[in-house]
Amino acid sequence: MTSEMHPQRWGDPAAAVALPDTARGLVELAFGGIRDTSAVVAPAGELPSLDDALLDGLRAVVGTEHVLTDTATRALRTRGKSTPDLLRARAGDLTDAPDVVVRPGDAAEVEALVAFAVEHHLALVPFGGGTSVTGGLVARREGFAGVVSLDLVRLDRLVAVDPVSMTATLEPGLRGPAAEALLAEHGLTLGHYPQSFEHASIGGFAATRSSGQASAGYGRFDALVVGLTVVTPSGVLTLGSAPADAAGPDLRQLVLGSEGTLGVITSVTVRVRRLPAVKVYDGWRWPSFAAGSDAMRTLAQAGLLPTVIRLSDETETAINLADPDSIGAGGDAGCLMVVGHEGEPASVAARRAAVAAVLTGLGGTDLGEEPGRAWEHGRFHAPYLRDSLLDVGVLVETLETATFWSHRQGLYDAVKAALAGSLGEGALVLCHVSHVYETGCSLYFTVAARQGEDPLAQWAAAKAAASDAIIAAGATITHHHAVGTDHKPWFAREIGPVGVQVLRAVKDSLDPTGVLNPGVLIP
Amino acid sequence: MTSEMHPQRWGDPAAAVALPDTARGLVELAFGGIRDTSAVVAPAGELPSLDDALLDGLRAVVGTEHVLTDTATRALRTRGKSTPDLLRARAGDLTDAPDVVVRPGDAAEVEALVAFAVEHHLALVPFGGGTSVTGGLVARREGFAGVVSLDLVRLDRLVAVDPVSMTATLEPGLRGPAAEALLAEHGLTLGHYPQSFEHASIGGFAATRSSGQASAGYGRFDALVVGLTVVTPSGVLTLGSAPADAAGPDLRQLVLGSEGTLGVITSVTVRVRRLPAVKVYDGWRWPSFAAGSDAMRTLAQAGLLPTVIRLSDETETAINLADPDSIGAGGDAGCLMVVGHEGEPASVAARRAAVAAVLTGLGGTDLGEEPGRAWEHGRFHAPYLRDSLLDVGVLVETLETATFWSHRQGLYDAVKAALAGSLGEGALVLCHVSHVYETGCSLYFTVAARQGEDPLAQWAAAKAAASDAIIAAGATITHHHAVGTDHKPWFAREIGPVGVQVLRAVKDSLDPTGVLNPGVLIP
Repeated sequence: MTSEMHPQRWGDPAAAVALPDTARGLVELAFGGIRDTSAVVAPAGELPSLDDALLDGLRAVVGTEHVLTDTATRALRTRGKSTPDLLRARAGDLTDAPDVVVRPGDAAEVEALVAFAVEHHLALVPFGGGTSVTGGLVARREGFAGVVSLDLVRLDRLVAVDPVSMTATLEPGLRGPAAEALLAEHGLTLGHYPQSFEHASIGGFAATRSSGQASAGYGRFDALVVGLTVVTPSGVLTLGSAPADAAGPDLRQLVLGSEGTLGVITSVTVRVRRLPAVKVYDGWRWPSFAAGSDAMRTLAQAGLLPTVIRLSDETETAINLADPDSIGAGGDAGCLMVVGHEGEPASVAARRAAVAAVLTGLGGTDLGEEPGRAWEHGRFHAPYLRDSLLDVGVLVETLETATFWSHRQGLYDAVKAALAGSLGEGALVLCHVSHVYETGCSLYFTVAARQGEDPLAQWAAAKAAASDAIIAAGATITHHHAVGTDHKPWFAREIGPVGVQVLRAVKDSLDPTGVLNPGVLIP
Repeated sequence: MTSEMHPQRWGDPAAAVALPDTARGLVELAFGGIRDTSAVVAPAGELPSLDDALLDGLRAVVGTEHVLTDTATRALRTRGKSTPDLLRARAGDLTDAPDVVVRPGDAAEVEALVAFAVEHHLALVPFGGGTSVTGGLVARREGFAGVVSLDLVRLDRLVAVDPVSMTATLEPGLRGPAAEALLAEHGLTLGHYPQSFEHASIGGFAATRSSGQASAGYGRFDALVVGLTVVTPSGVLTLGSAPADAAGPDLRQLVLGSEGTLGVITSVTVRVRRLPAVKVYDGWRWPSFAAGSDAMRTLAQAGLLPTVIRLSDETETAINLADPDSIGAGGDAGCLMVVGHEGEPASVAARRAAVAAVLTGLGGTDLGEEPGRAWEHGRFHAPYLRDSLLDVGVLVETLETATFWSHRQGLYDAVKAALAGSLGEGALVLCHVSHVYETGCSLYFTVAARQGEDPLAQWAAAKAAASDAIIAAGATITHHHAVGTDHKPWFAREIGPVGVQVLRAVKDSLDPTGVLNPGVLIP
């Protein structure tokens, strides 16, 4: 069984990242000093529960030991890991806790649980790694007999490997590291490393259209998926007859991004790659974010994208949240780019040389491997650091979007202005590009500000302002964090009333009584 | 205005390809001799028409000169260009003719026509190039007040070019050559060259998930599309905020492949590339189809795919339908592969050398540029040659599918056996692979047999046998020809009852009275 995350913090408590001295200095300087805001309130009062008949019904499906009602287990299935989620958890607020956590052992038990939920009108919340940062696990309780967290942790098998087609079929409960370990036994890798990698699940990657730090080389998760099995209240949907086809609309792309609202994914068949023999990550300095972005665009449009490519803007480069040891250390002016190549030695050497030639020609400065190593070392640390900052009176959160290249600068300016306008000029707004396409890129913002009286309201206002700016700029409300409940109003504006109508029609058809993750995704 | 195709034959009559002597010899040898089956029956009787009030209503929307009811215009909008379509056209059968052809001038007129069709319950058949080979233009007449062919030929503008994002927005009525000519003025190309290129339209490419001969280098058409505008009876759907996103299911992929049943595409925004400075196509010989296929797989999985890659099996290599001048000339044993590289000279040279090294290492024999030039010369000729063969007593038709690499040989064997079983051992079955992915490939079959008493029934039986074999093998019923009406029963088996239910739900939501291309696609 996978280790569980801390109920009020990110990740494994043993891996917590203490606030480095440099960061303490920054907090003193920028946010009015260190204040102890680390107190946690224990949840008070009784949590609601299902009646015994319903619990017995669930036990009959999955076995008594897999129907869990204790507060600790339920607390760990309450909301996800956005900053508002953490603030609510720290305040002892378990109002969104499920009534019960059930752990099916196979797809047949998932089918039986879906049928049971329909029969008894129970809201069913598919649960993978619990890493949602957009409220994807906050199902609507009103109108249902109760809320059941459907924890897929026991669906953790590597079902099949096809080394000829280079595909693998995985169960949804596998966490990132476990999936990679099982594939590594066959010399294979998914190459999918989002920041949530250590805790997020295969089912979650698919349900949210996840994108990893090496998306330039391995592809977004939705591009890796060639097949899916999905249990819906209307039956089982099995998709994926070929790598690509012209047999009507691609229904796989309707399940990818459906966030548990249309069905429960019980298997995912993905494209895999051979484990890379070599991984090398170089640092490059650019005189400006615009110059570095243009270089990314040139590489993408020349068919020269490396495996990993990310570019921090001037502020993020100076602060360098990705490397806690150097936070606040400032450093040279300009912007840091990390360029990584993975694969066979000869191929990596050739691609590295070709990319270096282009970057040098465009005005980049090769910083060698040290900045790349620092990034690699800290690549999963940022969420831990957020907890340490939340402990000392700082409000920290991230948001992200994507757009076409010609709109990149305008979107960047608009979101920065919206955040500064809401949080005040004292707020720090950092940004990086970490997902690059021929036609555009993502923008990922990290925001830090002094915590006010009501940090939840403080962030809600800033997030709304940024989201309004994103939609006004014609960009997407989310490149890889999904819609959940938090993004719904802006998602509705993004796809328009006809798009919303289509989603509702699919939802009503597959889940006519609406038991699957009610309130999530569908506007 | 684009030149129109011949009503009973493929393409431009001036470009017809006479049957080469070698092919005549083959027909003598294999199909019992040359017989004159070129006779065409003129359509007899009156074609049905709309009443004057409806015609006046249409005229009020698009102008009198764009409402056409003459038999010639309607004949050219009757069915598509499959062999059964041609046989019916040759027999003078215009039972599927539309009552009227209307040519809107812009998206607003399309909206008005859709509203008019809903109001008067007229079946509306979006018409692009008329090149469907799967019955995509054969709408159901029963239950409707009439059938209107919605010819999009006047929506033929290049609306916008974004040279920074490398995207272009095109109207649906643009034919392939016109789109390329407009883009070439900006130094850009789509790189999308299906065999139907000379006549097919941008809207059709999108509506059918088309895939071109250079798909390995430029991508399938659905991979090129970043945005769409679609007029539905429920309103206008505008999609595409970013190259990729996690904002729910990718609704673009629901429109791509919808074949005019969910809405009328009025603009398509696509990724474009710079016009290649160099195009070079080499021939390679392989000892067997299996050896050549394995080499394709190696290239795809090594990230070394060229721009064009196609491999003919032993029979197709011997017959070489792609090059009419050498049909029946036989030649060396083995299988011919065409490997093409397009781009800047240095990049082409480097990729060509890298690919050649791999292919040589795997046992391929470099045949130089002559076979590649022959392929390039004849790449759009096959449909013309089909007409010439239909004229001399031969039944010729194609079908295609795709699967994962580990199923390639089994699928190939099964489809060949099914076709031979239905048409008899005298039939020739040729096959090539022309679309290659990391996880699998397409298989494209060309069938030639002596025409029997009832060639329509003869082909229907063979096609059904092959389709059954495809679905039994778990492959897709179509890699790039779409579903139309011909593939519907097998499409339903491929996506299963839940998949069919989803499509029906979307259809019922967007087109509640079912006026858009009724009878097509949706099982």
